[in-house]
Amino acid sequence: MILYWLGMFGIAAFAITGVISSGKRDMDLFSLVVLGMVTSLGGGTIRDVILSVETVYWVKDTSYLWVAAASSVFAFFAVRFIENRQTIFHYADSFGLALFTVVATENVLRLGFSATIAVTMGVITGIAGGIIRDLLSNRAPLVLGREFYATPALLGALFIVLLNDVFPSHPYNAIYATTLIVVLRLFAIHKGLYYPSWLLYKKRAATTEELPHEPRK
Amino acid sequence: MILYWLGMFGIAAFAITGVISSGKRDMDLFSLVVLGMVTSLGGGTIRDVILSVETVYWVKDTSYLWVAAASSVFAFFAVRFIENRQTIFHYADSFGLALFTVVATENVLRLGFSATIAVTMGVITGIAGGIIRDLLSNRAPLVLGREFYATPALLGALFIVLLNDVFPSHPYNAIYATTLIVVLRLFAIHKGLYYPSWLLYKKRAATTEELPHEPRK
Amino acid sequence: MILYWLGMFGIAAFAITGVISSGKRDMDLFSLVVLGMVTSLGGGTIRDVILSVETVYWVKDTSYLWVAAASSVFAFFAVRFIENRQTIFHYADSFGLALFTVVATENVLRLGFSATIAVTMGVITGIAGGIIRDLLSNRAPLVLGREFYATPALLGALFIVLLNDVFPSHPYNAIYATTLIVVLRLFAIHKGLYYPSWLLYKKRAATTEELPHEPRK
Repeated sequence: MILYWLGMFGIAAFAITGVISSGKRDMDLFSLVVLGMVTSLGGGTIRDVILSVETVYWVKDTSYLWVAAASSVFAFFAVRFIENRQTIFHYADSFGLALFTVVATENVLRLGFSATIAVTMGVITGIAGGIIRDLLSNRAPLVLGREFYATPALLGALFIVLLNDVFPSHPYNAIYATTLIVVLRLFAIHKGLYYPSWLLYKKRAATTEELPHEPRK
Repeated sequence: MILYWLGMFGIAAFAITGVISSGKRDMDLFSLVVLGMVTSLGGGTIRDVILSVETVYWVKDTSYLWVAAASSVFAFFAVRFIENRQTIFHYADSFGLALFTVVATENVLRLGFSATIAVTMGVITGIAGGIIRDLLSNRAPLVLGREFYATPALLGALFIVLLNDVFPSHPYNAIYATTLIVVLRLFAIHKGLYYPSWLLYKKRAATTEELPHEPRK
Repeated sequence: MILYWLGMFGIAAFAITGVISSGKRDMDLFSLVVLGMVTSLGGGTIRDVILSVETVYWVKDTSYLWVAAASSVFAFFAVRFIENRQTIFHYADSFGLALFTVVATENVLRLGFSATIAVTMGVITGIAGGIIRDLLSNRAPLVLGREFYATPALLGALFIVLLNDVFPSHPYNAIYATTLIVVLRLFAIHKGLYYPSWLLYKKRAATTEELPHEPRK
């Protein structure tokens, strides 16, 4: 039951990031609602399709659909009164990432898959919606940024697997793991949490510009 | 039977938009055929996968595959003789959007899903192919533009649900709804049909450029 | 058995291209591993989902997951010592394209699908992973470039269908077809293999810049 509500909160959070991220001057209400819904329902849809579940979650229970639509409408009107949209965007994105990763990992475990598959699907579900949003709104995917993004999702997914092992189906496990991801992600945003230098990608002379293919205009 | 032929016309229309949109100087025939096929078959594939149908439509009936391929080849050679490709592009896109939305909505209704799911899948099928095309050819997704795009699809999907309620399985229902979408979309293109101002997204001082993350180059 | 190992090599090759293509200064290890895995597992996932197989290949046999992860980690550390990354990128991409196309075509044939579906799915599997990679790393999709890319995949897929007809399940069929694709692709890269001019797309005065819609910034 807690999982159900956490999932709904995740849907709402991601819908809001979709509207803020894709919003451009003079776009209309319904287009933005569509984009908010794609962002918030996309990750879980990919998870369900890959796991070949019988019915995708929002086809089975249309409340998810309505929560995504209502949150998008709310975000559409609310952003007018918000001064610092990017802060809201990053906070909502952190919550969405955390909630989706944890809920997906625990659900996949309950379906009887191995811990490897559960963690993989948890991370995929957490980051896929944001990647779709960033592609559609022509923003560099957050996961490709310099701060911690995929790593908090991985640590949170591993943490919930561990918690479920030690305290089987304790009702608050999901809340502990969600908190871990959100805290790590907020640290990354505000303190610029990085990896040690030897775990960072280094460029040499050769760059993408030197490709024999024309660069994207 | 009418639905079947309307679906085929939709495939052909979207294949043509795929070729026009992705076509760059000196691209070869087969690459463009692949892109035309992805554009035209993509939306329906996503629909079938989300609804967990037993066999995706073009795997079951390969005529769809051949129509998509033949239309792409036709478009490849025909564009040489066309002066105003963008007009053709927008007309074909409007027809494709209308046909896919209506055919998908009616098919999903017939599979026994609720009106909510039918309308949702209709809109998704209508706009998904175009989104894939626009991402691949690095064009701003039409659905993110300022004119009516997703809204005509929504209205058309709602209209066919209504028609099927009032005149159950009347053979021309699909044609009426298709016409509605095409007319709304052509009005949007030529007259710049907008929403009233309070239903449009407003930017404030904060813009995406002020993100703490590097912008996409 | 040969198919299994060729598939694993394809996973490794594509994982390496994903890391090289998406790598930007200071990106962390795990983000790049995620991108390498998406690149290498993406194409086959799309194939399995479209064919409605019971369990997606890497969910059934997690060795694929581990090979993708290990190759990405290897590529992450190895690129530091490589002078000409773009050459490695194009070579690995050619091998990945060839191996995925051939393995997918033969596997789909064995599942009992027609040659049309087998060739289509072979080409889709071969190019889809690369398209996802190129979209995520904001690189113009290789398939949209001027040299032969989709065509070698098509010819290789047709060749393996032919070979399986003439020499049913000969163990080296897959190796011959893979070699054909790699050779064609390397010719394309080094010699700029083109189609004859009348099979190339010609631009007229009207260009995408004249669209009534704002261009992507």
